[in-house]
Amino acid sequence: MENFSYYTPTRYEFGRGAEEKCGALTRLCGCSKVLLVYGMGSVVRSGVLDRVKQSLGSCGVEYVDFSGIRPNPTDDRVYEGIEIVRREHIDGLVAVGGGSVIDTAKAIAAGALYDGDFWDFFSGKAVVERALPVGVVLTIPAAGSEGSGNSVITKVDGMHKISLRTDSALRPRFACLDPELTFTLPPYQTAAGIVDMMAHIFERYFSPSSDVQTTDRVAEGVLQAIIEEAPKVIARPDDYQARANIMWCGTLAHNGVCGCGRVEDWASHGLEHELSALYGVTHGAGLAVVNPAWMTYMADRRPAKVAQMARRVFHISLADDREAALAGIAALKDFYRSIGMPVTLSELGIENPDFDLLVARVHENKGNPFGGYYKLGPADTAAIYRLMQ
Amino acid sequence: MENFSYYTPTRYEFGRGAEEKCGALTRLCGCSKVLLVYGMGSVVRSGVLDRVKQSLGSCGVEYVDFSGIRPNPTDDRVYEGIEIVRREHIDGLVAVGGGSVIDTAKAIAAGALYDGDFWDFFSGKAVVERALPVGVVLTIPAAGSEGSGNSVITKVDGMHKISLRTDSALRPRFACLDPELTFTLPPYQTAAGIVDMMAHIFERYFSPSSDVQTTDRVAEGVLQAIIEEAPKVIARPDDYQARANIMWCGTLAHNGVCGCGRVEDWASHGLEHELSALYGVTHGAGLAVVNPAWMTYMADRRPAKVAQMARRVFHISLADDREAALAGIAALKDFYRSIGMPVTLSELGIENPDFDLLVARVHENKGNPFGGYYKLGPADTAAIYRLMQ
Repeated sequence: MENFSYYTPTRYEFGRGAEEKCGALTRLCGCSKVLLVYGMGSVVRSGVLDRVKQSLGSCGVEYVDFSGIRPNPTDDRVYEGIEIVRREHIDGLVAVGGGSVIDTAKAIAAGALYDGDFWDFFSGKAVVERALPVGVVLTIPAAGSEGSGNSVITKVDGMHKISLRTDSALRPRFACLDPELTFTLPPYQTAAGIVDMMAHIFERYFSPSSDVQTTDRVAEGVLQAIIEEAPKVIARPDDYQARANIMWCGTLAHNGVCGCGRVEDWASHGLEHELSALYGVTHGAGLAVVNPAWMTYMADRRPAKVAQMARRVFHISLADDREAALAGIAALKDFYRSIGMPVTLSELGIENPDFDLLVARVHENKGNPFGGYYKLGPADTAAIYRLMQ
Repeated sequence: MENFSYYTPTRYEFGRGAEEKCGALTRLCGCSKVLLVYGMGSVVRSGVLDRVKQSLGSCGVEYVDFSGIRPNPTDDRVYEGIEIVRREHIDGLVAVGGGSVIDTAKAIAAGALYDGDFWDFFSGKAVVERALPVGVVLTIPAAGSEGSGNSVITKVDGMHKISLRTDSALRPRFACLDPELTFTLPPYQTAAGIVDMMAHIFERYFSPSSDVQTTDRVAEGVLQAIIEEAPKVIARPDDYQARANIMWCGTLAHNGVCGCGRVEDWASHGLEHELSALYGVTHGAGLAVVNPAWMTYMADRRPAKVAQMARRVFHISLADDREAALAGIAALKDFYRSIGMPVTLSELGIENPDFDLLVARVHENKGNPFGGYYKLGPADTAAIYRLMQ
């Protein structure tokens, strides 16, 4: 187990009607005028935005609408948001939506208090030291951004999708988690979210650090809960209890508790970000293709942890690590297929992938080599991308 | 899954030398003069107190020593501490030790800012609304107080041991967790701590709430990690990795993550507190006797969750719930015995228990009936105490 710091000062309000507490929670953060960040209309149609506005209003919190955030959110909207925050003397942000909306709000929150270009944080030129308070009303359990200190933004110039990780500066101050808000999520988006949360656990689970029994067991527990509850939400989108479990799994998958005491991997997210950036695929669906391919490559090189996952999560009883790993990967693919996710590039809709470009870009963005569990050079990433076929 | 709030704003610094950060962390809390609370001498002998003082001093934090806190800490020391805090214009507390020291510091922290008698918080007459910041340097992984909002204090007048639970007001602001500080813990105290952390999980796990798959799986994961790592720390007290895992389990067992979304039980702690108060037994050792007895009583009344624990934690494969439960309880007792813990009152050193007095006191302190998973009346508690023989 490695030395670690763990600090998760996000106040979670979980359950039916949780969004109605967002006004009081915003007040608790000391905010009186917020930028209300949301997406493309589903939060309007479902009525949740109205309830959020009512809650803010009833607590005397003013708000300025900032809508139309799209999946794979881009830097141009961040610049726009920063300008509004400064012009309107806004002192906090409330994000109503999923990862894209939350990540945009976080980037604005940090950028608004920074003298330079907010992209400095993403390019590594500057470190986030302070940010406006961000609150969340979650409608898509997937990215885990409601409980993380991270933000992923794509630079339109070059379509570089970059992940910014902070210890705590960008952790939301509160997150309202109402499982009922996820009843209307379409099956594909629900399933993509489930893959995303599993991937967040895998990125931490596949670690070069040994003796992390406690964190391993917690991570395996959350994976098992996801695998048990996922079929229920796909079969019955308004199954409150299953939606509640999946929603909480999404938060635990990414708030850090599954990573305590270890060096993490994050290679698969790097590999997937290029698929999203070049081919516009849904992040979670892309991960359903990337994760098994990465694990398959590991089965021939460093199978031990893949085998442990296979045995503990998928109850594979094979004694040989490579065989157990491969059986576990097959079970994982079966699971992804069972919830309607692709497991090959062609199922993902990418018929003629430009492998050379993917490899060049992933190393440009992630370095050479990269990855915590196993260091990937260009020969490795090329082989892994080809395993996705 | 029930609606829940979850807010754990404790900053954990985990690893070798973590205690050397306590000066900087105290400064981060805005404190300049702290009450340094500790116990009976082991922190002096081990040198950790010196390192803490050096860290505080190097960060310009003054301190006033407040030592000699004993196991099952009492209200008299709390009154004394409150007086010193007020007299010396102290603005924070640093507890160096285990649960007794931390709980005393928390009670002082709340009492010092309260106009009335601090015992009002424990008797239910008042609610803690504010408290001085408390920081922790943990030396005994057991009580989980370093990550909880709770404090347990015994009133000398009548020897009533009462647990105060707050949402977040009494959560430590930081906790330095250095596994090396636990190398010198004697085997009995190590084992009692292990039982205590398991009991903290059981109290949450045995819940009337259904559909808490996620929290169940996390709780079962932490239990499994404890059971795997415990024999290692008993066999080799300076096994850093095993000590690290056990230490982190102790925090996760009680910081709330194993309780999210459910009504909790806490009957066994109530039953044990009377044993501690009347017979002066070590809390963890008492729980090793109480927990299996309580579970055995449940096996005939509400075996389902005991059976789930048996199957998932102890890998019992019996189909019948009662049989599985009983086999799981037998495995739990074997585990407790294997780490040197008692599983009967007589092994605990209580040869002639006053059952009538125990029953009368437990209902006086906990109500009638009490318990979340199963409501216990006097006939139930009498039967459970007798099952401890």
